[in-house]
Amino acid sequence: MTRIDGRKENELRPIKMTTGFVDFAEGSVLIECGRTKVLCCASVEDRAPCHVPEGTGWVTAEYSMLPRANRERSRRDVSKLKLSPRSAEIQRLIGRSLRAAVDLAALGERTITIDCDVIQGDGGTRTASVTGGFVALAIACRKLVEAGVIEKNPIKNYVAAVSAGIVEDVPLLDLCYEEDSSAMVDLNCVMNDRGELIEIQGTGEGRGFTVEEQRTLVDLCQGGIRQLIEKQKEVLGG
Amino acid sequence: MTRIDGRKENELRPIKMTTGFVDFAEGSVLIECGRTKVLCCASVEDRAPCHVPEGTGWVTAEYSMLPRANRERSRRDVSKLKLSPRSAEIQRLIGRSLRAAVDLAALGERTITIDCDVIQGDGGTRTASVTGGFVALAIACRKLVEAGVIEKNPIKNYVAAVSAGIVEDVPLLDLCYEEDSSAMVDLNCVMNDRGELIEIQGTGEGRGFTVEEQRTLVDLCQGGIRQLIEKQKEVLGG
Amino acid sequence: MTRIDGRKENELRPIKMTTGFVDFAEGSVLIECGRTKVLCCASVEDRAPCHVPEGTGWVTAEYSMLPRANRERSRRDVSKLKLSPRSAEIQRLIGRSLRAAVDLAALGERTITIDCDVIQGDGGTRTASVTGGFVALAIACRKLVEAGVIEKNPIKNYVAAVSAGIVEDVPLLDLCYEEDSSAMVDLNCVMNDRGELIEIQGTGEGRGFTVEEQRTLVDLCQGGIRQLIEKQKEVLGG
Amino acid sequence: MTRIDGRKENELRPIKMTTGFVDFAEGSVLIECGRTKVLCCASVEDRAPCHVPEGTGWVTAEYSMLPRANRERSRRDVSKLKLSPRSAEIQRLIGRSLRAAVDLAALGERTITIDCDVIQGDGGTRTASVTGGFVALAIACRKLVEAGVIEKNPIKNYVAAVSAGIVEDVPLLDLCYEEDSSAMVDLNCVMNDRGELIEIQGTGEGRGFTVEEQRTLVDLCQGGIRQLIEKQKEVLGG
Amino acid sequence: MTRIDGRKENELRPIKMTTGFVDFAEGSVLIECGRTKVLCCASVEDRAPCHVPEGTGWVTAEYSMLPRANRERSRRDVSKLKLSPRSAEIQRLIGRSLRAAVDLAALGERTITIDCDVIQGDGGTRTASVTGGFVALAIACRKLVEAGVIEKNPIKNYVAAVSAGIVEDVPLLDLCYEEDSSAMVDLNCVMNDRGELIEIQGTGEGRGFTVEEQRTLVDLCQGGIRQLIEKQKEVLGG
Amino acid sequence: MTRIDGRKENELRPIKMTTGFVDFAEGSVLIECGRTKVLCCASVEDRAPCHVPEGTGWVTAEYSMLPRANRERSRRDVSKLKLSPRSAEIQRLIGRSLRAAVDLAALGERTITIDCDVIQGDGGTRTASVTGGFVALAIACRKLVEAGVIEKNPIKNYVAAVSAGIVEDVPLLDLCYEEDSSAMVDLNCVMNDRGELIEIQGTGEGRGFTVEEQRTLVDLCQGGIRQLIEKQKEVLGG
Repeated sequence: MTRIDGRKENELRPIKMTTGFVDFAEGSVLIECGRTKVLCCASVEDRAPCHVPEGTGWVTAEYSMLPRANRERSRRDVSKLKLSPRSAEIQRLIGRSLRAAVDLAALGERTITIDCDVIQGDGGTRTASVTGGFVALAIACRKLVEAGVIEKNPIKNYVAAVSAGIVEDVPLLDLCYEEDSSAMVDLNCVMNDRGELIEIQGTGEGRGFTVEEQRTLVDLCQGGIRQLIEKQKEVLGG
Repeated sequence: MTRIDGRKENELRPIKMTTGFVDFAEGSVLIECGRTKVLCCASVEDRAPCHVPEGTGWVTAEYSMLPRANRERSRRDVSKLKLSPRSAEIQRLIGRSLRAAVDLAALGERTITIDCDVIQGDGGTRTASVTGGFVALAIACRKLVEAGVIEKNPIKNYVAAVSAGIVEDVPLLDLCYEEDSSAMVDLNCVMNDRGELIEIQGTGEGRGFTVEEQRTLVDLCQGGIRQLIEKQKEVLGG
Repeated sequence: MTRIDGRKENELRPIKMTTGFVDFAEGSVLIECGRTKVLCCASVEDRAPCHVPEGTGWVTAEYSMLPRANRERSRRDVSKLKLSPRSAEIQRLIGRSLRAAVDLAALGERTITIDCDVIQGDGGTRTASVTGGFVALAIACRKLVEAGVIEKNPIKNYVAAVSAGIVEDVPLLDLCYEEDSSAMVDLNCVMNDRGELIEIQGTGEGRGFTVEEQRTLVDLCQGGIRQLIEKQKEVLGG
Repeated sequence: MTRIDGRKENELRPIKMTTGFVDFAEGSVLIECGRTKVLCCASVEDRAPCHVPEGTGWVTAEYSMLPRANRERSRRDVSKLKLSPRSAEIQRLIGRSLRAAVDLAALGERTITIDCDVIQGDGGTRTASVTGGFVALAIACRKLVEAGVIEKNPIKNYVAAVSAGIVEDVPLLDLCYEEDSSAMVDLNCVMNDRGELIEIQGTGEGRGFTVEEQRTLVDLCQGGIRQLIEKQKEVLGG
Repeated sequence: MTRIDGRKENELRPIKMTTGFVDFAEGSVLIECGRTKVLCCASVEDRAPCHVPEGTGWVTAEYSMLPRANRERSRRDVSKLKLSPRSAEIQRLIGRSLRAAVDLAALGERTITIDCDVIQGDGGTRTASVTGGFVALAIACRKLVEAGVIEKNPIKNYVAAVSAGIVEDVPLLDLCYEEDSSAMVDLNCVMNDRGELIEIQGTGEGRGFTVEEQRTLVDLCQGGIRQLIEKQKEVLGG
Repeated sequence: MTRIDGRKENELRPIKMTTGFVDFAEGSVLIECGRTKVLCCASVEDRAPCHVPEGTGWVTAEYSMLPRANRERSRRDVSKLKLSPRSAEIQRLIGRSLRAAVDLAALGERTITIDCDVIQGDGGTRTASVTGGFVALAIACRKLVEAGVIEKNPIKNYVAAVSAGIVEDVPLLDLCYEEDSSAMVDLNCVMNDRGELIEIQGTGEGRGFTVEEQRTLVDLCQGGIRQLIEKQKEVLGG
């Protein structure tokens, strides 16, 4: 089987991260995975939400598609007066994933919001948001340390994400839009730099998948995430 | 380690399914998993949504907590003018899971909506919704066949769901609320009666989990789901 | 004239009240009036709304139909982003009726919210909500006294409600759905255990009704409410 | 007992109806009952809502308070993104009341919407809306006949409304704001020109009321409505 | 060219201002410009919004059309769950215009809200709202001084507004609805009593307009506003 | 007086337009005016809104700020369940401006939506949206012609926009954020390539402005727009 863009089965799409794409955000990066482009901005606020224990902070995320990020224009959420359920699901995933990278006590009574706005969507926007969102978050945390606002960098570990799927019974890493549209199984993993899972979400589209197949997909993701974290380290100069 | 309710590590909570709890629905069941109680009602409508290919049908789900299903009263969605993001996420999961049980072409241009309303929530409400929702769906499908509306029962296979988690480093099946609150890892599986995965969702709360741990949890779920499907067959007299 | 279910003109439908249907609520009852089923849950909160004089409490109610409570499925309020006007009207009625049973000063700075969720609607859901809501409220108040939170039980009197109507020119007590659908006049009364009116609401559907007819309907209701209050006392062991 | 404005117990406030207050509406009247001022406009649309049998029409009403109609400014509904529950209740009452005046088959497939906007509220705004709304409706119907759009005037009978209440144990007709604020019982009647009830709504505020008291209030209303209908006839030149 | 109502090119429509149209508002006026009728009410509240410097006040405006103000009935904003974008734009204009008349420091920590509700719309409702809104505001400010709440009247200068437009290539002052509908250019000016501009908004409908034409329209407006301010002084007895 | 960025009083900020920033849109451009960055995407849909005469098309615009476009993060519109009134006003302006560039009959029954999403806002976002929106629109129109969908290019003329203002009594062209914040007068012009006005909007902030000052600002804008249209022609290769 030949992939539509000629990649090997376990090959990522080309990654590009442009930091500082937005001047005003405490951390920002435009992440490109193939044709997928997501702008991730980290904003620091000097108070924590009330559901958080005193003295500790919070990390949260918002995710949205620009109306013309896709092949068809979609209506804005505000004109439907509701957050798209898909966006609601995705931003919860991003928030949980990024909190797993942060020592919230070390952050202190602060909230960091990661806005992930999809400028162009060609598959894998949620995993690109996690991978790029981590970079924006790390930049913002470093600035807090450099400015002397907090003493210790609250970043505990790297976090990145990628998808894998089964297309015509072949397990493939990092599906692009065309592959995703015809995938029988679609699975996303978020992992840290120890190769541990933070999140796993898999769905059979049209058929179930065996426990064995699921393991293969997780292994593919683990390989891809290792490379993504390398890339993050490079960008962060870490 | 002793579980709070004395169960073994791989033991389900007691299951009870009362079919016909609501007279008017085409299929209904009150499912109880321990203290968790979910009312699942199937409603058949004679038209399919427009995003579905002509001649085929659709299965969808809605999920909601009654305001006093939990230890604390929660405000109704309508008073906040938005669907709770958690409910949005869960009802998408239930819908995808139940569609995996149905031959949508055999259903014809019909929509079956499964309403899952949590009357009491003590952990595992989303998996109870899938397991009970399947029973309501199967009853509604059987009625369509019995009434001569469709020829062939569109149910392709059974579907059920359960959670597993890691509490104090011990993998446990079917977490109740107290266990869920202190779990380090929480993982839900939806499977069919061939033991294949339909959906998998896992989250590390406070720590990552190894690929090995993830496998153990999936195995626990597989055992539990086998028993749940036995129970479904009993109730459906199938 | 023979009633559809064989009842006498001044006969109530069979009543059943299952208390403690939901464990977590401070008071709960599943009330069944014929095929009508309403779950009533009382929740106590330790603060009063700001429009209430200092030192006194408040009792309020919310009413909602589950989507498949009726013969046809109805859309959830949240998907229309507005409370159904009918529900808005009914929950105001329930709230006013139950406040008439309570010494708000004796309650202290607390709010008791009575959630009335209709599981199956076969006519008379608003009056069943008042009758069942009172029981949930009384249980919650008793618990406050037993727990030593307040000294004196704030319940001043019993409150119950029933409907009556004119069908084919015959006045009938406690209309079921079929009767209600063909009624020319529909009237609801809420009364206390001294036989005094708390609320009266009557509507001519298709024709006006004389002051004399209105009196007959009130008398029918008065008889029915006497029996309902007997039933409440039984259930409450009062 | 002397009433605040010197009226007798069974005396209405001065009524004034200015028809044609808005040029563009098919029927309009500014009704003033004492200091209460409500603008009622009838709009005719050439289609009926889908829940109405083919060939017949519909009459509906909307009710709203201008923000500074009261002693305190209130926020607009749109800024709270919800119709005030009180308005929802009242506009349902007005709609039902006015439909009782109309032969919907004679109206044909048309909708008449009566907008009742309270410019100044000093008690009795819902009953003034019914009384004024009828006048606007009758003007619009007459125009339809005069324009040859329909043959027979669909108005079947007059409809008007008034309140009565018990203040310091004295039954009084047509409460103004100060009386309403201290009333123990508040009751509204809508009646036709045969003296039949269309709607009755009564509430005990702070105490119950006997069946006997209720009868006295209805009698007071009946007397007041007779005078209001006289006034309507005068204004309509009928 | 003859204007539809016989006016000269630089002639205003007849102006009428009825102050005290609503008793409860701190200032109120019904302004009529030809057939356009707008009710303007000023409400004083004893606190300023948080975005305002300490010790200073705020003036804001809300604008709305009653549903039957126009030739066709329009739906209420609340039933669409959103403020009409046109109203949003207009009320921002009115607010900015009226703030230009007030010394916000002299007002102290107070908010004055000017509600402009269009009862009948025949062109020029936004400019009538500014002209009438100023009168309501001035009455409310004077009352604050008379009541000794503030020492110095915070009104710094008069403010009024009018439109001009180009119809069949002829520049005309104060367009009525029919003229407005066929105008090629439509321009509104808000000015103070020194003849200075506060706001200018002009739009080419169907064609652009030269800088020279724009100057002619501003000159027309300047003449009209001078007369409107004369009228305001008369009404305010200033 | 020296401008903060060293520009002359009648000098524009550096302009950069990157076309094709989003692959999927029928036309797209990232416009940068100094530090202001707006992404403009044109989407073509094969149907016109119902308020448009048969056979003709429509051009409309939507405008939104990304949450971290500004120095402070702002909440998304959807989380407040309403379009920001400022955005409502601006997108109406952009829509009117761009329609002035198009022969809607030549466009045929199509809608072109121009989405203007502000990625970074440093003053002048609405005028940048008009200038960039025109480029996106022109690209989309050219594609329609090239694809043979329509015969004649519906673009009638160029349209661009810029602001001018008075800062410390000095009239300046193209205000950046710092200048805008301290401006006494702020005025925006939209013009076509014949130097005619399409839209003018001016506001006195803190003081009125003379008719003479207004003329000076329009002249400044006219000069700036001439240069912007040169730039548009260059980018469009026209």
